[in-house]
Amino acid sequence: MDIGEFREFGKAAVDYIADYFETIRDRQVMPDVKPGYLEDLIPKDAPNNGESWQEVLQDLDRIIMPGITHWHSPNFHAFYPSANSFPGIVGEMLSAGFGCIGLSWIASPAYTELEVVTMNWLGKMIGLPEEFLNCSDGPGGGIIQGSASEVTFIALLAAKERKVAELKAQNTTLTESEIKGKLIAYSSDQSNSSVEKAGLLGSMPMRLLPADENGILRGTVLAKAIEEDKRKGLIPCYVVANLGTTPTCAFDSLEEFGPICQKEGIWLHVDAAYAGTAFVCPEYRYLCRGVEYADSFNFNPHKWMLVNFDCSAMWVKNAKYLVEAFNVERIYLEDAHKGMAPEYRHWQIALGRRFRALKLWFVMRIYGVEGIQKHVRHHISLAKHFSELVGKDNRFEVCSLSMGLVCFRLKGMTHSQKHC
Amino acid sequence: MDIGEFREFGKAAVDYIADYFETIRDRQVMPDVKPGYLEDLIPKDAPNNGESWQEVLQDLDRIIMPGITHWHSPNFHAFYPSANSFPGIVGEMLSAGFGCIGLSWIASPAYTELEVVTMNWLGKMIGLPEEFLNCSDGPGGGIIQGSASEVTFIALLAAKERKVAELKAQNTTLTESEIKGKLIAYSSDQSNSSVEKAGLLGSMPMRLLPADENGILRGTVLAKAIEEDKRKGLIPCYVVANLGTTPTCAFDSLEEFGPICQKEGIWLHVDAAYAGTAFVCPEYRYLCRGVEYADSFNFNPHKWMLVNFDCSAMWVKNAKYLVEAFNVERIYLEDAHKGMAPEYRHWQIALGRRFRALKLWFVMRIYGVEGIQKHVRHHISLAKHFSELVGKDNRFEVCSLSMGLVCFRLKGMTHSQKHC
Repeated sequence: MDIGEFREFGKAAVDYIADYFETIRDRQVMPDVKPGYLEDLIPKDAPNNGESWQEVLQDLDRIIMPGITHWHSPNFHAFYPSANSFPGIVGEMLSAGFGCIGLSWIASPAYTELEVVTMNWLGKMIGLPEEFLNCSDGPGGGIIQGSASEVTFIALLAAKERKVAELKAQNTTLTESEIKGKLIAYSSDQSNSSVEKAGLLGSMPMRLLPADENGILRGTVLAKAIEEDKRKGLIPCYVVANLGTTPTCAFDSLEEFGPICQKEGIWLHVDAAYAGTAFVCPEYRYLCRGVEYADSFNFNPHKWMLVNFDCSAMWVKNAKYLVEAFNVERIYLEDAHKGMAPEYRHWQIALGRRFRALKLWFVMRIYGVEGIQKHVRHHISLAKHFSELVGKDNRFEVCSLSMGLVCFRLKGMTHSQKHC
Repeated sequence: MDIGEFREFGKAAVDYIADYFETIRDRQVMPDVKPGYLEDLIPKDAPNNGESWQEVLQDLDRIIMPGITHWHSPNFHAFYPSANSFPGIVGEMLSAGFGCIGLSWIASPAYTELEVVTMNWLGKMIGLPEEFLNCSDGPGGGIIQGSASEVTFIALLAAKERKVAELKAQNTTLTESEIKGKLIAYSSDQSNSSVEKAGLLGSMPMRLLPADENGILRGTVLAKAIEEDKRKGLIPCYVVANLGTTPTCAFDSLEEFGPICQKEGIWLHVDAAYAGTAFVCPEYRYLCRGVEYADSFNFNPHKWMLVNFDCSAMWVKNAKYLVEAFNVERIYLEDAHKGMAPEYRHWQIALGRRFRALKLWFVMRIYGVEGIQKHVRHHISLAKHFSELVGKDNRFEVCSLSMGLVCFRLKGMTHSQKHC
């Protein structure tokens, strides 16, 4: 495909997307295909000879669209929202067009540098303490990861690194392997499946402690569990606080968790995957009080902040523990700029990096802080409106309303049926 | 931004990419900016009010381009290639446009189904045994991951899961934690940094065994290390074979490793990140002989097969061990189609998934198998041509030539300086 053909194909694809959004309201949200539907529509093998882009584009309607669940339809209400916006789509396209791999600063300086700047912008927009920013001359900073799952796992590894270093410095009689075998992590039973998965991935038992009737894990429950485990000879290492749980968007209290974690030398990670976007609006920042106690903080602009998946924002107060957990240097990765810019490859699982900062930058500039605030407030007002409508219906009762999430149920359900 | 503005912005961005490729040959490959260059060009905070897309697009030239390393310039020779192509770019754009999250089959059936089909196409194109395909009615299958780093780590976790299950079934007197503490993994000292990192991430010591003078880890060396470790009471669990090492693109022999791993019940993983694309050409498949012994196989279409980053292809003979390592179910993730299609979220770290199959499909269809073969053969012929030119120059000597990689050095260097 030559450049001229790309101009045509690319513009036809832009129109395809635009037409899709013009008609999305009228599309049936859920596809009615059966598993295996696509195999019958497509050859068993790749074509031997190349086909025209026109044929491929036409097949989107015939093969792909029947199997698309329309997440951006105004009638889609499943799961959490997946953010998207036109500026984000164009940012993604340009990132694919440049096609560099940002595996080090020198591999494409703009990749690292725009990420440093946009993560500072974003951290300031949600009111994070300066220690979390790249601009504080301290060891903190922000990075874009692919998903909250990755972030929760990575923060767990950093927590492990710090705890092992701390105990070694105290001249423990335990070997490193014995220390690791005793480490334990905590979160709420309301936390996302990815939190439990982080424990599995990182070989650290993750105790999911019972939340109260409002879906909040209380500090007293956490403190008690930690005491129990210490008596058993275990070493509490990592706590994941939820700001916006998956089932009801409940908020743990960082002011309760913080002093406990500080006293015990436990790494406090904040999972605000969905709700974190709300902190762009000052009126919701009270839900984030105590964030100064946190060691790492995460929210997903790809959930509620108009940036298309994937864009998971992570900040740490001290990146040293990430770097030490991940650093595997090779002669082919060295360059002359060591220490002058963050080498994000040591902050993440993969070596390569896409230019995800570009779409984040586009979204922040084209909407502006006010545009994003307006978007958040609009979602929350829609949830309130829906909740009022449900409240007027005799058949249903609202069991919780938080941010854009309304949980309701049929009246008169027995307790065991009460899954909100 | 409304749909009309998106049509304009999107098409302007297509032209921007097209213009970039029209001028890329004349651009200076390496930027001459210094660390921190971008901070001086950009405000300290996000704008309060939204800006126009025209302003943002103009800033690409002023702010971003000076810090781009031109990976797709014909004069770029660093690292490994990062694949890109116009069909891949358009596929990425459409994937961003649809903006679904493929966290389960029902979350967007086309996402799972196109991945099943394209991974079968791709597996057949490189000559993988049928056991690795989704179409074999067996427990095998292919999945697209983000990077070889992730894949090597994920395969390690599956290996651990299988070994623990196997020993438990043999009524070992060891506890699960004791088993895990004794597991050990092996690879070549020529393997990529990500292999060592996988050991760190997965809490399994990774022994990097010395390769021979041709960069190949011999089966005899592997067998000896395994015997040593067994005598020490360790439990050999995981071997990563390199088909195309990072320093010289050397090929370990799966025919040597395979019987050793089979005898010892060791999970054999194949890292063919770069060179795997060459197996699209039948004349290079001899380098893959013995692949029937492997438990998992990985190569990156995003390195050499014209698909833009990220697209890392992974196949396993038995996905059960991945699913068991990763499965954390929740009520909000259940649906009525369980078991009828692969639930890829149990095969990977993250919960969410992009529609990466779309760009892979576009590339395979628009180039066809012959087009991809032609691309591979052209790269290899260029390397041969370059190697001949170096050979004619009295100052240099070629130390290895394999696939698209030529390693050469100044003549007369001392041994310690001989880093190819």
